[in-house]
Amino acid sequence: MEMDSKQFREFGKAAIDILADYYDHIRDRNVLPSVEPGQLIRQMSEDAPEQPCDWQDVLKDFTEMILPGTTHWHHPQFHAYYPTGISYASIVGNLLSDGLGVVGFNWIASPACTELEVVTMNWLGKLLGLPEEFLNCSSGPGGGIIQGSASESTLVGLLAAKDKMIRRLIKENPDLDPDDIRNKLVAYTSDQCNSSVEKAGVLGSMKMRLLKSDAFGKLRGDTLKKAFEDDVADGLIPCYVVANLGTTGTCAFDPLYELGPICKENNVWLHVDAAYAGSAFICPEYRGFMKGVEYADSFDMNAHKWLLVNFDCSAMWVRDGYDLINAFDVQRIYLDDVKTSLKIPDYRHWQMPLGRRFRSLKLWSVMKTYGAEGLRRHIRNHISLAQHFAKLVKSDDRFVVEPEPTMGLVCYRLKDGDNLTKKLLENLTAKKKVFMVAASYRGRYIIRWVICSLFTTKEDVEFSWQNIKKEADIICISNKSVKSKISNIESIESVSIYEEKTK
Amino acid sequence: MEMDSKQFREFGKAAIDILADYYDHIRDRNVLPSVEPGQLIRQMSEDAPEQPCDWQDVLKDFTEMILPGTTHWHHPQFHAYYPTGISYASIVGNLLSDGLGVVGFNWIASPACTELEVVTMNWLGKLLGLPEEFLNCSSGPGGGIIQGSASESTLVGLLAAKDKMIRRLIKENPDLDPDDIRNKLVAYTSDQCNSSVEKAGVLGSMKMRLLKSDAFGKLRGDTLKKAFEDDVADGLIPCYVVANLGTTGTCAFDPLYELGPICKENNVWLHVDAAYAGSAFICPEYRGFMKGVEYADSFDMNAHKWLLVNFDCSAMWVRDGYDLINAFDVQRIYLDDVKTSLKIPDYRHWQMPLGRRFRSLKLWSVMKTYGAEGLRRHIRNHISLAQHFAKLVKSDDRFVVEPEPTMGLVCYRLKDGDNLTKKLLENLTAKKKVFMVAASYRGRYIIRWVICSLFTTKEDVEFSWQNIKKEADIICISNKSVKSKISNIESIESVSIYEEKTK
Repeated sequence: MEMDSKQFREFGKAAIDILADYYDHIRDRNVLPSVEPGQLIRQMSEDAPEQPCDWQDVLKDFTEMILPGTTHWHHPQFHAYYPTGISYASIVGNLLSDGLGVVGFNWIASPACTELEVVTMNWLGKLLGLPEEFLNCSSGPGGGIIQGSASESTLVGLLAAKDKMIRRLIKENPDLDPDDIRNKLVAYTSDQCNSSVEKAGVLGSMKMRLLKSDAFGKLRGDTLKKAFEDDVADGLIPCYVVANLGTTGTCAFDPLYELGPICKENNVWLHVDAAYAGSAFICPEYRGFMKGVEYADSFDMNAHKWLLVNFDCSAMWVRDGYDLINAFDVQRIYLDDVKTSLKIPDYRHWQMPLGRRFRSLKLWSVMKTYGAEGLRRHIRNHISLAQHFAKLVKSDDRFVVEPEPTMGLVCYRLKDGDNLTKKLLENLTAKKKVFMVAASYRGRYIIRWVICSLFTTKEDVEFSWQNIKKEADIICISNKSVKSKISNIESIESVSIYEEKTK
Repeated sequence: MEMDSKQFREFGKAAIDILADYYDHIRDRNVLPSVEPGQLIRQMSEDAPEQPCDWQDVLKDFTEMILPGTTHWHHPQFHAYYPTGISYASIVGNLLSDGLGVVGFNWIASPACTELEVVTMNWLGKLLGLPEEFLNCSSGPGGGIIQGSASESTLVGLLAAKDKMIRRLIKENPDLDPDDIRNKLVAYTSDQCNSSVEKAGVLGSMKMRLLKSDAFGKLRGDTLKKAFEDDVADGLIPCYVVANLGTTGTCAFDPLYELGPICKENNVWLHVDAAYAGSAFICPEYRGFMKGVEYADSFDMNAHKWLLVNFDCSAMWVRDGYDLINAFDVQRIYLDDVKTSLKIPDYRHWQMPLGRRFRSLKLWSVMKTYGAEGLRRHIRNHISLAQHFAKLVKSDDRFVVEPEPTMGLVCYRLKDGDNLTKKLLENLTAKKKVFMVAASYRGRYIIRWVICSLFTTKEDVEFSWQNIKKEADIICISNKSVKSKISNIESIESVSIYEEKTK
């Protein structure tokens, strides 16, 4: 190695200090950076350095060039998108993983990598209250695997569903043409789905219907049933349904207890995308939102969103591991393995890529360091902070909060119209103090405020609200003056018209 | 946070020391662990801990339970598969990335995340000597992106090729049915391809022909041309070719200068999979192996294999970024962005998942800390160690080295037959001192010895060889005695037969 272990100790520890300092003083920064597109590209040299440089230079450039160009996802006033996970425990857990640098595509490539994943996915599945048949520790063929993202899990589910449907239909009728079946397969989700669900249809070459959600943003059983019937009447074959537990726009929950039985009747694979809100199911009081989960064929939640684990750690469980193996197994002599059972899975057959990192280490480090108790406290704290924010917004009668928040997301708008709400968001973004993004609900433009950072306190929430209120004051005053000008103009015009008419 | 920044400083620094100690004393361990399948699962508790535990406990379990169950990928006697990247610089680079915990799906989500990726992919592309049109800093629509794995890049290329072909044919003839075109598309690669290439065909629903390679494991132009002609005659449409620069089995290089013109004539997308060997192109003396790369539409190499960067960092360049955007773009209001050009890409449209980590930080940290000079020295050192090993094997006339090694892979076998070679590998694996895997070449069972660890010295190579030689001594002696027994039996039998006949 160019750098020896002594220098590594210094470099690594200095980096730890930089990160600790960064979080100790994060409130000194704006959540959004003050940079123009292309700024860093122009700052950096055009070519890689020919000669090695000291690790001190790496940290210097990191502090002086990279940090100022970063959007601070864990800043207390970061309220955009949904949270991405971080915690000190997870950072160190992944440091250990990078330090080992193993690639665990099969058991022998690193036994601990496979087995700790089995262990932690059992731990997490139980904490979430998932049906036992999804767990590796049950007697059946179910089990959990860490995927890279909810996008990937949705696509994995789609490809497995496709493969299973083709196998089944060919078995029933060997004269059928697989290509012909493939063309007829249809996937369904709601018009509130994450972009990645729609993309799974594009990537997996399956028609993906974005069915109309109800007034609350939920995909209802009747709608799904009708869509199945229409497609079957047209000679198509319903194959895959993605139900959203916590949509990206407004955190709506599709009723699994309505969708599930319809999927079951039609032999359609039901995948549950609980990317964000799934973490809340570790608290028993929120499990009502997954009523009907026993109908699911696969279930995915991002421990890397709301459960303090660094990206990437998308936890996926399937009812039957053989469905994945049948779809994905490609053998090679150099991958010859000690024969293991489904209970110690060759995870490369459960995922799309061949390679895989030791991702369970960060999940394990978080679960040990927080304990189930600490994780539940984190979720409940976030939800209560969101409730506090919602109360503040509701107390101002210029604002509407809707839909009624249940998790860490609060959606709101100004009563005085979409343009004003849009203007409010634009002005706040331009000031870089509070970061939120937009969505739409019942045809109205709304602002999404999500509790994201694990550093956010009640005072931070109030700081956010004060900023929003102040900006609304400015906008509403200027709007009033515009309005009164308009009404003056209108009076003048009416007078003119009146005068003309009476002439 | 349950853990405060003071504890994080202690935890993080203790982890750094554990890793440094691990590498300082790595030769004290066997490369393969002494564990049975299921051992760790049985050792760990069945449920997640309810109460939090100290970070000291995490490190204790890591040291006492995880490490002993790990295959040591960076052990000097790890010679299996292909290398996976690691370096002290990369570990710390990724620590910084995990510490920031940003998700850079578009520019505003973290400007530095997007822009450092542009910068480092330009740096690396130039170092490799790629044609200028692949670089973001050229005047055209090309550019680089970090994907998760070569598997992913192969699939991304396939999906983009499919989309492009369908668009082109529909444009030429709007009456065509996209489903009908899709069913007719065919992909091609050699029978020496990595399993992930074959899997890309499965995942992307495209027929993937594994064409017969020549006696040296290369896919030749004539073979490809014939396959195109046969398929076209059958009404099919050649769409995608994956050329291998460094096959997984024996590190054979497909001649791009033969395959490229044929792809070009037929409007077929040429993807170059240089996952392992691509790193060597930073040394000008090895660029002859990519002669014809100017015909490629996409090029992928794993900086996380041989270039000291931790998994995952698969560097992919495309000739035209719009080909990816057309295939993958799915818009949403909450992803609304400051409008940026192709020069500051919205990388989410260049890849399959929505989320992405700040992976360029580790690549950047490695390139700065080693410099181009240090990286070239690393590659040349590995190749010269492989040459040294090959010389040692050749000096023993019981062994054959073939094919002739060019990179860090040396393939060899015992002259006395496949069973003996297989036995040799089994015995060595059972002793856990040296780890290698098998492949086949010209119908023979061979052992692959790859220089993987950046710690391996000339002495380590000699230690490997001594172990192999010693095991061969044991096997060959017992084989001789078996052989002489067999020939005795045969003599007795012939005598008996003779006797019978003469009776």
